[in-house]
Amino acid sequence: MKDVQNEKDERNIAIDKVGVRGIRYPITVLDRMDKEQHTIADINMYVDLPHHFRGTHMSRFIEILNEHRKNIHIDRLAAILKQMRETFDAGSAHIEMKFPYFISKPAPVSKAEGMMDYECTFEAVSGKDGDDAILGIKVPVMTLCPCSKEISREGAHNQRGMVSLQIRYSQMVWIEELIDIVEACASSPIYSLLKRPDEKHVTEHSYANPKFVEDVVREVAVAMNAHPKITWYRVEAENFESIHNHNAYAALEKKKG
Amino acid sequence: MKDVQNEKDERNIAIDKVGVRGIRYPITVLDRMDKEQHTIADINMYVDLPHHFRGTHMSRFIEILNEHRKNIHIDRLAAILKQMRETFDAGSAHIEMKFPYFISKPAPVSKAEGMMDYECTFEAVSGKDGDDAILGIKVPVMTLCPCSKEISREGAHNQRGMVSLQIRYSQMVWIEELIDIVEACASSPIYSLLKRPDEKHVTEHSYANPKFVEDVVREVAVAMNAHPKITWYRVEAENFESIHNHNAYAALEKKKG
Amino acid sequence: MKDVQNEKDERNIAIDKVGVRGIRYPITVLDRMDKEQHTIADINMYVDLPHHFRGTHMSRFIEILNEHRKNIHIDRLAAILKQMRETFDAGSAHIEMKFPYFISKPAPVSKAEGMMDYECTFEAVSGKDGDDAILGIKVPVMTLCPCSKEISREGAHNQRGMVSLQIRYSQMVWIEELIDIVEACASSPIYSLLKRPDEKHVTEHSYANPKFVEDVVREVAVAMNAHPKITWYRVEAENFESIHNHNAYAALEKKKG
Amino acid sequence: MKDVQNEKDERNIAIDKVGVRGIRYPITVLDRMDKEQHTIADINMYVDLPHHFRGTHMSRFIEILNEHRKNIHIDRLAAILKQMRETFDAGSAHIEMKFPYFISKPAPVSKAEGMMDYECTFEAVSGKDGDDAILGIKVPVMTLCPCSKEISREGAHNQRGMVSLQIRYSQMVWIEELIDIVEACASSPIYSLLKRPDEKHVTEHSYANPKFVEDVVREVAVAMNAHPKITWYRVEAENFESIHNHNAYAALEKKKG
Repeated sequence: MKDVQNEKDERNIAIDKVGVRGIRYPITVLDRMDKEQHTIADINMYVDLPHHFRGTHMSRFIEILNEHRKNIHIDRLAAILKQMRETFDAGSAHIEMKFPYFISKPAPVSKAEGMMDYECTFEAVSGKDGDDAILGIKVPVMTLCPCSKEISREGAHNQRGMVSLQIRYSQMVWIEELIDIVEACASSPIYSLLKRPDEKHVTEHSYANPKFVEDVVREVAVAMNAHPKITWYRVEAENFESIHNHNAYAALEKKKG
Repeated sequence: MKDVQNEKDERNIAIDKVGVRGIRYPITVLDRMDKEQHTIADINMYVDLPHHFRGTHMSRFIEILNEHRKNIHIDRLAAILKQMRETFDAGSAHIEMKFPYFISKPAPVSKAEGMMDYECTFEAVSGKDGDDAILGIKVPVMTLCPCSKEISREGAHNQRGMVSLQIRYSQMVWIEELIDIVEACASSPIYSLLKRPDEKHVTEHSYANPKFVEDVVREVAVAMNAHPKITWYRVEAENFESIHNHNAYAALEKKKG
Repeated sequence: MKDVQNEKDERNIAIDKVGVRGIRYPITVLDRMDKEQHTIADINMYVDLPHHFRGTHMSRFIEILNEHRKNIHIDRLAAILKQMRETFDAGSAHIEMKFPYFISKPAPVSKAEGMMDYECTFEAVSGKDGDDAILGIKVPVMTLCPCSKEISREGAHNQRGMVSLQIRYSQMVWIEELIDIVEACASSPIYSLLKRPDEKHVTEHSYANPKFVEDVVREVAVAMNAHPKITWYRVEAENFESIHNHNAYAALEKKKG
Repeated sequence: MKDVQNEKDERNIAIDKVGVRGIRYPITVLDRMDKEQHTIADINMYVDLPHHFRGTHMSRFIEILNEHRKNIHIDRLAAILKQMRETFDAGSAHIEMKFPYFISKPAPVSKAEGMMDYECTFEAVSGKDGDDAILGIKVPVMTLCPCSKEISREGAHNQRGMVSLQIRYSQMVWIEELIDIVEACASSPIYSLLKRPDEKHVTEHSYANPKFVEDVVREVAVAMNAHPKITWYRVEAENFESIHNHNAYAALEKKKG
């Protein structure tokens, strides 16, 4: 059969990224408590395409993924990227993964355990100028409005918020550690299971710790600045305001050193 | 050209609904303040298909929609359904529309105006056994937890919630009236624009009116039971809990009389 | 602490469903090939609430889920529902689960294996009038338009479509079997991994088997009517038309016997 | 009342973006045919926050939006950004809008008119180092696989694809012109309303013009390189493959001159 993809292309235009998107795949990730956990990822894989080739053999991305089946640890992504570059004879290879990560978390007073899920992302690139990797987590938190507390006789509006943190790092950092850092920067962590003494605690603790989205991103920034393994970060906080139908938002990004 | 759709079908299976989904279309709806407003709908249109025909001429749905272009009022849907039944020689015709509806709403103290959007749905059927229509609205509200308030020394967790109300009616009911009813059943309405005196008011008002999702659906039910124009309703309340990463939910449905 | 939920309610309104929505949870499901597979579910749990109680203790849903942790098989849902009815002293209990289900599927010619994911749902109710359960699957397929093929000199438009099938059954039916049935009713199954001889096969096979959405739902209906274990079904087919920006749709529902 | 937002902040961390997200708002945009059209936007607005202030007065974003109500043309965004910088005494101001844009489009043979909707985005920044603006459109198209056509006896798989194009420009470019350019780079444009002679034309035209995602982005790149008003572009093509449950993707970006 004729190989249309291998035809010579005369348009003289190189393509930055060619590949497959939206592949759902079961993966295994390292877990600080249980050594590993099974989860499910949405995966995108790309390579660059030199100007002289017409197309890419998309099935090869799936073949590479299948070879590593049942063994897709984040610490093997470098091997997958290397294989992508070799298979496609490519200058650069990209892989992006998004997956839920589960942690059993004790309630603050009763210590009753509940399962929390955190959306994680991992984006890795291997190119001519070296490799790069960004780890991301989304941590749902509780925020209580300092202004509402200050101006009101009683109570204060509060809400679920989402803090998104992305990092580059010089040494491996546990997802669990990042979650702990982010949760400490909000008015309160949130939980899956809260008995009444826990609910009392969370209510009073958040009331004692009012935070704007601006406060949340600044406190995460202070922690990231102090963290020896983190070389770059981007933090965003978004409040699903209980008093509005739109969200409050703050973001900042910093390359350290 | 051969008309494949008109071929005789031997499988002897009638189809309940055949048609088109996901049509985005600019429409005009009646508005209590300004007489009419421009909005954009997602539209689905179906007819039934007798067992002896193989297929439907899908383009005719679009032609019917186009004929009514710039004039798609909810009170003209009966005419559209009639035309659908005639064009397709169908026993029943269905139309479903979802659209945002905007209301300029004053803040509770400053009276500063802000635009609120409410997702509305309209589902209408014309069939052999008569016609039917269901109007739906989604009203975002603030709910403050009665348990959290009761057990805590200070403060109470609160959050954005969404109340979904669907009604059948004997006489036309304004969307604005339904929104007012629903908002009065929550701990507080929510607003687009709140200055500080407004934020103080909303905070204190919601603290004085704690409501579970169970309370919200019951109070909407009491109002629906008392409303002379409403013959059936379904109400759901969902809280995007500020202390959890999952939602609290309550629902009930009633045919009156 | 005062138990606000246990307060007497004077509004005299019973609630159909009260509970928790949007819980993400790792589960294990039975698998025809490998005995079991790990996946992740979105879970909703509800009970009814008699008119005389004000509220529900939502944390108990999570506790019940946690008790069955690492062991949430579909065949244990009856036990979970029973426990829900007892814990809440409820007349009815509902559980809804949505999860991706993975199958390794060989390509039609090369037999190269690729992972396919299918979205499954399971809704179970235990009530005073007995129990009920509905299993659902979404099967992506390829459909090729019979009209386009008939009227055109060459080629025919085709597209990805989604077939949704829900069943009630007298005896357990494998998800794998339902997928096989649905795929056989479309122009072609779709695959994760196709080498060039496979792509040739799929292209030619689909061209030889043109199907409208009307054909797809009718052929699934014929298979469901003939299946001895299935007592009720609902089938929908939706084509993401390659020539339009809206979708073609057909649906039918039948209670057998 | 105490102004908590105006408190001095000691953490010494400036914030890149603070503001509001997810505001739905009716807007008016210029239209080549009808002079203007009503549509509905999702709007985000941000400013930067110097390190010495604790918070932002979020309600002021809404007030600015309201002032320009019924008059939010893209060519007035510069005025809105200027007002944001002044109101917040900010170094930079950002506004992001996403809205559907409707065009009445004739079918290729019958010339029957149908409404097509295209998702557009507009991102504008005003900062110390000058202003910047990016216009984006998403154009759904039909793509037919060159490899499938080449290797198969008859037919070829084809599907709906989405081309995303973002541009910077030295002079205003009509959305309609960009859509025309993109549609000409695919196997065929797609339409809302196609009668049978039109469907025959689209089927045969696409069969005669097979295109990979790689071809689509390259042809858009050739057109963008030749366009005198465009100074930068980013183009992505994503195919919702009819033979797979994942998508094929290509992307490239170029700063001209």
